Amino acid sequence: MSKTVRKLQVASPVPADIDIANSVEPLHISEIAQELNLSPHHYDLYGKYKAKVLLSVIDELQGRGDGYYVVVGGITPTPLGEGKSTTTVGLCQALGAFLDKKVVTCLRQPSQGPTFGIKGGAAGGGYSQVIPMDEFNLHLTGDIHAITAANNLLAAAIDTRIFHESTQSDKALFNRLCPPNKEGKRSFNNIMFSRLKKLGISKTNPEELTPEEVKKFARLDIDPESITWRRVMDVNDRFLRKITIGQGPEEKGMVRETGFDISVASEIMAVLALTTSLSDMRERLGKMVFGNSKAGDPITADDLGIGGALTVLMKDAINPTLMQTLEGTPVLVHAGPFANIAHGNSSIVADKIALKLVGPDGFVVTEAGFGADIGTEKFMNIKCRYSGLTPQCAVIVATIRALKMHGGGPQVVAGKPLDHAYVTENVALVEAGCINLARHISNTKAYGVNVVVAINKFSTDSEAELSAVRDAAFAAGAFDAVICSHHAHGGKGAVDLGIAVQKACENVTQPLRFLYPLDISIKEKIEAIAKSYGASGIEYSEQAEKQIEMYSKQGFSHLPICMAKTQYSFSHDASQKGAPSGFILPIRDVRASIGAGFIYPLVGTMSTMPGLPTRPCFYDIDLDTTTGRVIGLS
Amino acid sequence: MSKTVRKLQVASPVPADIDIANSVEPLHISEIAQELNLSPHHYDLYGKYKAKVLLSVIDELQGRGDGYYVVVGGITPTPLGEGKSTTTVGLCQALGAFLDKKVVTCLRQPSQGPTFGIKGGAAGGGYSQVIPMDEFNLHLTGDIHAITAANNLLAAAIDTRIFHESTQSDKALFNRLCPPNKEGKRSFNNIMFSRLKKLGISKTNPEELTPEEVKKFARLDIDPESITWRRVMDVNDRFLRKITIGQGPEEKGMVRETGFDISVASEIMAVLALTTSLSDMRERLGKMVFGNSKAGDPITADDLGIGGALTVLMKDAINPTLMQTLEGTPVLVHAGPFANIAHGNSSIVADKIALKLVGPDGFVVTEAGFGADIGTEKFMNIKCRYSGLTPQCAVIVATIRALKMHGGGPQVVAGKPLDHAYVTENVALVEAGCINLARHISNTKAYGVNVVVAINKFSTDSEAELSAVRDAAFAAGAFDAVICSHHAHGGKGAVDLGIAVQKACENVTQPLRFLYPLDISIKEKIEAIAKSYGASGIEYSEQAEKQIEMYSKQGFSHLPICMAKTQYSFSHDASQKGAPSGFILPIRDVRASIGAGFIYPLVGTMSTMPGLPTRPCFYDIDLDTTTGRVIGLS
Repeated sequence: MSKTVRKLQVASPVPADIDIANSVEPLHISEIAQELNLSPHHYDLYGKYKAKVLLSVIDELQGRGDGYYVVVGGITPTPLGEGKSTTTVGLCQALGAFLDKKVVTCLRQPSQGPTFGIKGGAAGGGYSQVIPMDEFNLHLTGDIHAITAANNLLAAAIDTRIFHESTQSDKALFNRLCPPNKEGKRSFNNIMFSRLKKLGISKTNPEELTPEEVKKFARLDIDPESITWRRVMDVNDRFLRKITIGQGPEEKGMVRETGFDISVASEIMAVLALTTSLSDMRERLGKMVFGNSKAGDPITADDLGIGGALTVLMKDAINPTLMQTLEGTPVLVHAGPFANIAHGNSSIVADKIALKLVGPDGFVVTEAGFGADIGTEKFMNIKCRYSGLTPQCAVIVATIRALKMHGGGPQVVAGKPLDHAYVTENVALVEAGCINLARHISNTKAYGVNVVVAINKFSTDSEAELSAVRDAAFAAGAFDAVICSHHAHGGKGAVDLGIAVQKACENVTQPLRFLYPLDISIKEKIEAIAKSYGASGIEYSEQAEKQIEMYSKQGFSHLPICMAKTQYSFSHDASQKGAPSGFILPIRDVRASIGAGFIYPLVGTMSTMPGLPTRPCFYDIDLDTTTGRVIGLS
Repeated sequence: MSKTVRKLQVASPVPADIDIANSVEPLHISEIAQELNLSPHHYDLYGKYKAKVLLSVIDELQGRGDGYYVVVGGITPTPLGEGKSTTTVGLCQALGAFLDKKVVTCLRQPSQGPTFGIKGGAAGGGYSQVIPMDEFNLHLTGDIHAITAANNLLAAAIDTRIFHESTQSDKALFNRLCPPNKEGKRSFNNIMFSRLKKLGISKTNPEELTPEEVKKFARLDIDPESITWRRVMDVNDRFLRKITIGQGPEEKGMVRETGFDISVASEIMAVLALTTSLSDMRERLGKMVFGNSKAGDPITADDLGIGGALTVLMKDAINPTLMQTLEGTPVLVHAGPFANIAHGNSSIVADKIALKLVGPDGFVVTEAGFGADIGTEKFMNIKCRYSGLTPQCAVIVATIRALKMHGGGPQVVAGKPLDHAYVTENVALVEAGCINLARHISNTKAYGVNVVVAINKFSTDSEAELSAVRDAAFAAGAFDAVICSHHAHGGKGAVDLGIAVQKACENVTQPLRFLYPLDISIKEKIEAIAKSYGASGIEYSEQAEKQIEMYSKQGFSHLPICMAKTQYSFSHDASQKGAPSGFILPIRDVRASIGAGFIYPLVGTMSTMPGLPTRPCFYDIDLDTTTGRVIGLS
């Protein structure tokens, strides 16, 4: 048994998350690292309870076999959430603290914005949490701050470049970009050569460029209307959703409408999540497309000379952060891209490091955002495609509450009391709702993994209801279906789930199969995914058609597809519960994150900047200045 | 001799800063900490070369005597800078590595924005630098990112509150602010009691408030025109200087003109620099005034319920970051407020910790931004007033180049070649320019400290020129005047300066005297400072008069004054070199940072958001992805 395992004393009823988190003294993170056979040169400490594990660990352990790879998804949730993060943590506490397995939990870093808004933190819940929860939810080791800095440096560079190009001749621009040195000689630097190559100019001496080549090189000729790059901030600031910039007198009337997204919506976050090495990150950041030239050609960060600087800003962010669960098992926290306009999964490098650290017979459990129709689908078709990693088991988290909703129960609204139907036995409602679970099971099984259903038990659930879900899960082809109570009991409440996951991993009979190949058209790929939703057809808006044509022409049709769809239904309509079918899926627009490496069709409108309520969480948050402890964080 | 001292091999001519920085392998920061008698529980590591020293060290060493306290200012500089940071570092390398003294250098954290713009880094230069210079210039330990987050959370809260107040009745607002709990009971939380107290309401049960009291409590009634709080970003983004926000459809037409400053211009940065403890920081952050009610009363962060959350975001930022010089002496990097709209000095807590760590006979050398007319003046009258610390010696850095400019030499422009006059001997020009040095000496002496002039020698300076400066310095009352060459030789080049500073510290004969007492009027304080500039009178704009009246009425006239004036002249006119006198100083506007604790009159227009040039530094910055090393940073 691992030396870092900590026995929990559980109380009933379950105390508040923060009280549970504060009741446990975390181990020094070097002890957690040591149990993973990490030496001090493998990681950088960030205080006593966090450490960044260096990417070089992957190279060092290259010859070692990987552990089992488990992804946790969920059924279509209610607005209250069905405990996917909590189950991910609880399962790992069971594997590590009760089943004597090497295990690493891989989680996303939450955005700091919602911590002060409505939602509160995201470190799990009850007796299945990552600690210290305030450090998990705030700043962590600065990765999101680095993304904000890099994203906004690029944004500033775009507008400033348009400004400078508008006031300078080709020759003046060129002279500034390639100034003479002390000896009067001009030269191109490294990043300029990548632009020259793209333009088909093979000359190496700036003096030899023709006036036409000078113009092509020095003038990006950005079409302001085409700019897709927005600024970001890790704060819920709704007043920045749409703004006009450049109204200062020095900017000479060069105003432009744009806006801010929350930082985790930055393409740089998606790059961080999908990258596989420092050199791969350098390349992806350099090839991010922020808009087109007036001639319609895509313009990249490297065209602007900024890909290297962005990489420098992100060089520490690429190392995942090691933390611990309440029961002393290790956690890697890394990246947290949006689950709609991006792929909603934690990072590839964290999973890779974790798989080497646990080694053969160990377990890496990673969470996929939203319902399995989105989270698990993107995990398979985008993340595993780029990582080359193969999962053996997919967990699908279900609750009686959500299944009743899918069976026709009344609407569930956050902040309002639950309807009577959700807290008293109603087996028929549960049975009817299992149609949602069944489709998630069959969709997920199609990837070639074994599916284990985790029924996250609430105190109001009846035996008959729970048993109905188990029956439905087996009928739909689940490898196993297990009732668990990790919220109330920690790892002990997920021991059966841990055993089931272990068996599922050890008994894989099929290879990994993607839902679609990359070499078909963008539309064919969208169709393959839509079919998995139950759609019978697709309707493209004019704008979507235009964008698909443009991206195809620009040579980006080989990329995987990342659907931006509501998580509250298989369909585009959040009110369609259960397993809708025969509907026409509307594609409103199509965008792309070329550096991250995917095309994202928009099914409906996605908010990328949350707001604050009248009484935000921050009213309750304070520092006890005597102890230095955070209070009121939920 | 300290065990961490590292012998430098100096090359001639002096290589590029980054090459010198990269030629030295830094010690693990725990070794530097150990030499200061810090145990691992006194600090948190942030990687191998940075550590945050915990504030608790001050309490633990409370009984211990302080070391000598030395402030480094400069004469009125050229736009190229006269090497104040470099001299600060070089002096410490001399004291620590050659004179066997306990020494700590206290420096400001530079803004990350200019690192990618024109300026490059700020870690010193030549053989007097802080290393690793990339970590010094980028992210550091996240303090500026924390400031950005806190500043912008407050900004978002202000606009959102106006929005919610505009759409809700008093009763609805109140019900949302004090919602009933599960038992149907309402209660005020801690932060609400501070607002109730301010409003003179002593009731503790929300149900007992009269409708009039409900209105007063729940409705801040912010006057949008009065909002002084701007958003910030640590990026040179000129297009954010003036913007219109709230143009999204959900914000229902509640548009407003505002803008972004660079993060170091945030009042929260000034708070960080001037705070003395966690509880003091909590108090300052809570009493920051962001605007007025429509009735003209100041509204604070605590009125908005957010002071605690801001403190939580800043809780780690209050701990200074320990780094090292090229010669292995310790450096504390902490806070970097603007030197015009704020006071331009590093933090009080870093200086306090440092003074205890070096103990009696040790030295703490801290830098004051801009010329001594601004930097040293604010160091004395604002920083020392709040800290209660007493400096013994003030260093004034001078260069032959700047003195020639003051003597009537041609204009010095960054990026353009220096005029012939600056690189050939011209003793008369130097002698004429010493009038500037002389006024800085007499102004600084008036505080009761001994003044040592550090003549930062360039290779083009002649013996006669250098000697003219020494003579002028003594004539003006300097304790000593020393020629130094730390840029070319590291600490060895500043040994004489170190000896002079030591003697100056050991021979103080006078107590510290402030330039003005706090209990006179705002105008009288402004006059006292203007007189030290050589002004014969002051002209207040109508706006300035209005603001002074308002701040006086609001009860803020007891605060010290922080002049926002150009550093390029004693006067308001940057072209007036030497020691102008008899001019009328115009006060265009008067603003206040109530939480930080000063009133700042604006003498002219101050840019609080820099821009990027056509070819920013970022073109040269990249990551060597094989070694993980930053290249091209200057």
